[in-house]
Amino acid sequence: MTVPETILWKQQRLQLLDQRVLPKQVEYLHINSLAEAVTAIRTLAVRGAPAIGIAAGYALAQSMRDVQPSAFAETLEANAATLIAARPTAVNLRWAVDRLRDTAQRDPTYEALCREAEAIDAEDRNQCRLIGEHGAALIGSGANVLTHCNAGSLAVSALGTATAPIYHAHAQGTPVHVWVDETRPLLQGARLTAWELAAAGVPATLICDNMSATVMAQGKVDLVIVGTDRVARNGDVANKIGTLGVAILARHFGIPFYVACPSSTYDKHTATGADIPIEERDASEVRGDHAADVAVFNPAFDVTPAQLVTAIISDRGVVHDPDETRLMALFG
Amino acid sequence: MTVPETILWKQQRLQLLDQRVLPKQVEYLHINSLAEAVTAIRTLAVRGAPAIGIAAGYALAQSMRDVQPSAFAETLEANAATLIAARPTAVNLRWAVDRLRDTAQRDPTYEALCREAEAIDAEDRNQCRLIGEHGAALIGSGANVLTHCNAGSLAVSALGTATAPIYHAHAQGTPVHVWVDETRPLLQGARLTAWELAAAGVPATLICDNMSATVMAQGKVDLVIVGTDRVARNGDVANKIGTLGVAILARHFGIPFYVACPSSTYDKHTATGADIPIEERDASEVRGDHAADVAVFNPAFDVTPAQLVTAIISDRGVVHDPDETRLMALFG
Repeated sequence: MTVPETILWKQQRLQLLDQRVLPKQVEYLHINSLAEAVTAIRTLAVRGAPAIGIAAGYALAQSMRDVQPSAFAETLEANAATLIAARPTAVNLRWAVDRLRDTAQRDPTYEALCREAEAIDAEDRNQCRLIGEHGAALIGSGANVLTHCNAGSLAVSALGTATAPIYHAHAQGTPVHVWVDETRPLLQGARLTAWELAAAGVPATLICDNMSATVMAQGKVDLVIVGTDRVARNGDVANKIGTLGVAILARHFGIPFYVACPSSTYDKHTATGADIPIEERDASEVRGDHAADVAVFNPAFDVTPAQLVTAIISDRGVVHDPDETRLMALFG
Repeated sequence: MTVPETILWKQQRLQLLDQRVLPKQVEYLHINSLAEAVTAIRTLAVRGAPAIGIAAGYALAQSMRDVQPSAFAETLEANAATLIAARPTAVNLRWAVDRLRDTAQRDPTYEALCREAEAIDAEDRNQCRLIGEHGAALIGSGANVLTHCNAGSLAVSALGTATAPIYHAHAQGTPVHVWVDETRPLLQGARLTAWELAAAGVPATLICDNMSATVMAQGKVDLVIVGTDRVARNGDVANKIGTLGVAILARHFGIPFYVACPSSTYDKHTATGADIPIEERDASEVRGDHAADVAVFNPAFDVTPAQLVTAIISDRGVVHDPDETRLMALFG
């Protein structure tokens, strides 16, 4: 078994692997309208910052298929704004939309937008490969890697971001084992990361989020690798809720904490983590059908300060002790 | 609405509030045999170190009802061993059983065992009251308290342990708000603590375990109070899985981390936390019906080193910077 493609683009029609029903069902959503794309993004049928960016590119291109030249610019702006509003935290969504807007400035045609969306997808695959190559050097033989949420193939394309170094090491024959945080409330670790690692043949053990301190205390974690939805100019990183806690635990136990991302995740227009909008989601995600009827706080992301990040692993290389100077030198 | 009693002892018959089906159903299990008591303890129908101790006392007494004097000593030993084997981590289980064994040395009768079990229950209620009084002094007006798992009324009796200072402050009119960690995998926070705080009228907000770092980073936690299943001689504390992580986060953010327990939870025969047996439970608790089919690690408890504990709040007083000398002075 191999991991199915997250995003399909066939005959210029977008299909998304429905991540809401994984791992029980492997089903593709056929996206027929911009509204369907927005719903898919908002309800996490497609999730993970890079995957959202790729999907948004295709969705925006597809939405412009039959638009007349006289209405092209206006429709593109409206559709772009609708897509960007779907989720606030990931920078890749806006980044992909902006790339198509720029393309339309030069060549306001449906075909040009499709080519640009396809280019984003192809670049992403290449970036994942490069992240894997750069990051694999940080994984020693027999290493135990802890990861949180899903920054894997399902979140991105091809090799994923946080998982790319793991897949690369595994492909090279380096023994590696992964501790998978289940990642409440939506259990992306338990449902998605555990599933795709198993499909790829990488040994993995699922734990609850609150067990990571114990496995670290037992000396069973050699490094942490997570993804990110946005890197601020100063190196603060937004990622799935719970990442900050893992970073603090890693620091406490002297374990390297790595963040893997394509260069498009660096947002030089956001000064610090405090400026990153953090999406709050519905209480029902936490409450489920088991909890007592009390108030709920459900932030979908948190911000890990740059000081807790050992290095950022990107397609352009590894930035140790990330700060504005080092990051701008590579990404600016 | 008030919180129902966790343990009922009526006409010398034990009934346990079935905590597996809370908060949806409020049902009592009628315990008719020692085997039923063991099953109730093992499947967490009754849980929480002090409550397990009280229930074990009653269950052991009840199991001796019709035993002939000639078989009394031998049956008591066998039943005691069966009960102790039900769960390994909480010291109160063995402690309560040992009290009944000591009683039988002096007065090997069913009636004496019932009186001793009733005495354990009464002492526990009184200890909770004292923990509340000692601990409430640590809660300032308007304080935000974070707690993990359920060391509340349902885990103990009356006011609970970790919740006793909160209930006491609330009863005195001190405004207090509680952040409730949901506590995966069995969700005792979401199902039990949130429910009993709501029933008692204490403002509470439910969060996933991996959100505690964020609320701390936002300056919204003034202190942490948790319970414990066993305090080792040196002050290391075993408690529900996830407690260690909360303690490390609290230290990182400079937030006091308190552990509340009756003096019976201090185990001078266990030198350090490394000597406390940690129960591992079934993978299905973590996997649920959502996770991919991968390996699971499911320790039910973790050990927080004494160095991370600001103070232990007990019925005999508050021990700041707990270590062997200070703890033996109060509990030895």
